[in-house]
Amino acid sequence: MSKTIEYQPIGAIHSPFKEQRGTPIQPSRADGVRATVEIFAEFVEGLSDLAGFSHIHLLCHLHRTEGFELKVIPYLDTVHRGLFATRSPRRPNPIGLSVVELIGIEGNTLTVANIDMLDGTPVLDIKPFVGEFDHRHGVRTGWLERARATRRNADGRFAKEAT
Amino acid sequence: MSKTIEYQPIGAIHSPFKEQRGTPIQPSRADGVRATVEIFAEFVEGLSDLAGFSHIHLLCHLHRTEGFELKVIPYLDTVHRGLFATRSPRRPNPIGLSVVELIGIEGNTLTVANIDMLDGTPVLDIKPFVGEFDHRHGVRTGWLERARATRRNADGRFAKEAT
Repeated sequence: MSKTIEYQPIGAIHSPFKEQRGTPIQPSRADGVRATVEIFAEFVEGLSDLAGFSHIHLLCHLHRTEGFELKVIPYLDTVHRGLFATRSPRRPNPIGLSVVELIGIEGNTLTVANIDMLDGTPVLDIKPFVGEFDHRHGVRTGWLERARATRRNADGRFAKEAT
Repeated sequence: MSKTIEYQPIGAIHSPFKEQRGTPIQPSRADGVRATVEIFAEFVEGLSDLAGFSHIHLLCHLHRTEGFELKVIPYLDTVHRGLFATRSPRRPNPIGLSVVELIGIEGNTLTVANIDMLDGTPVLDIKPFVGEFDHRHGVRTGWLERARATRRNADGRFAKEAT
């Protein structure tokens, strides 16, 4: 019943982060770090009208992860949690979802602020961030409400060994 | 340089929407419609701790789309816009991103409210929705700010023919 789904990258991230250790764990903890998103030539026409949006969703393939465990100790806690209740990058389908600020677009290159992606990360999709679609009120966040939430950067626990 | 990325579904959506025409265009326009998300047995352990979250991101493979165009007339406008400035389901990598309200979890079944996915849609990932990670202030939304934004349901323009 499960069929393999095949995707092709539409671009790649160019960021200052060369390895997982020290990379921000989320865009909201990235302190204004700038990066660029290169979109491959055949998709550039699809960037029209995007510059009017202040924020975008970046969907990326987290290519430096490998395998997954269904219980993990997340960066912001000290006990095991169910993987789908965390934002751990090691997942059955390692799709990264980040909301980043769009600074500008020139040709096939987007400049973005507050990025948490490793250099070379393949980009799967870009979607405009729209308050009506993407904001929610009265949000409860389970274990995260009680967790110590001061960590900013990754320590490599979810990295593939020796790459 | 571009390598094919392969994913396997972790589950499937069971929703009242059997075809694209009439399906809500976004969860925020779904008026409380309930649906279930079936998670395949081998991934159920990863659902621990998720029930504490009020909202989740559903990342799905939009299996009923086929092909894409880089300029589209979105549901909420009357002129062509760059594909990546829209939430059109027909994309190079047709990944659907929806924030839905989590009503409850029983065994391998999540009950969710406000869903905009077709019945049978393969699920790629579930992530907890976290205000700090996913909310943004001072959001600008380009063409959408000027567009007539009253449409609630799809009209089938992005559907694959005759399926």
